[in-house]
Amino acid sequence: MSSPPSPPRIDGLLETSLYARDLARTAAFYRELFGFKALVDTPRLVAFEIASRSVFLVFQAGATEDDVVDGRGKIPGHEGVGRLHLALSIAKEDLDAWRRRLFERGIEIVGEYRWPRGGVSLYIRDPDGALLELATPGLWW
Amino acid sequence: MSSPPSPPRIDGLLETSLYARDLARTAAFYRELFGFKALVDTPRLVAFEIASRSVFLVFQAGATEDDVVDGRGKIPGHEGVGRLHLALSIAKEDLDAWRRRLFERGIEIVGEYRWPRGGVSLYIRDPDGALLELATPGLWW
Repeated sequence: MSSPPSPPRIDGLLETSLYARDLARTAAFYRELFGFKALVDTPRLVAFEIASRSVFLVFQAGATEDDVVDGRGKIPGHEGVGRLHLALSIAKEDLDAWRRRLFERGIEIVGEYRWPRGGVSLYIRDPDGALLELATPGLWW
Repeated sequence: MSSPPSPPRIDGLLETSLYARDLARTAAFYRELFGFKALVDTPRLVAFEIASRSVFLVFQAGATEDDVVDGRGKIPGHEGVGRLHLALSIAKEDLDAWRRRLFERGIEIVGEYRWPRGGVSLYIRDPDGALLELATPGLWW
């Protein structure tokens, strides 16, 4: 018997992950620039809370490739290489404040894009080269 | 003059990205399993809306490494290799329905974990080996 066409609900994107060559360095970058609060801070993983109910995971590269197995179950291995991409939502009225904050920290805006719906995206690189986008409303909606 | 200690607000995680060896195949996997609606569907990118105001991007591997430059600006290159990781939130009462849906489709649950706060995570692999987690409340909160 097959499932009905409609799957159960997905309530949101809970976690996304990056992998840092030097976790302390990359975590410091995110903590300082964004003021993110760490829910977990270990040599293997720094987990930052973003807004409500989203978590941004930064793993030490090489520390997650093996399965984790303990009395609670099994977390299969994962890893990532490359200039991964994620986007964070910012308010339109904060765009200039973000430009200023990046400039003051010597963080280069490596790209900027004006979307047909009116949104503006600023692109920066984190210490591992990940492509981080700060996007105002008017990109997808 | 330095910025005040508090940065402007981050309103949420807007986008996260995966990179597919065969975009049509991987996009079909997500569309069929989760019923995600595509906001964009091209040979380069399928963008799925997840819940409210989050977008899950699946790029054709190899198609995003160069900068995109046009009259609207510049989107710098990005790419990812490896078994990347992201997590989606599900309701506790839907856990068995998800198990059933995965079983009916022959999608193996490659790991399962019971978190100290009571949440349960199911782990599956997408066609590219990405580690996808379906998590009930009680993981971080």
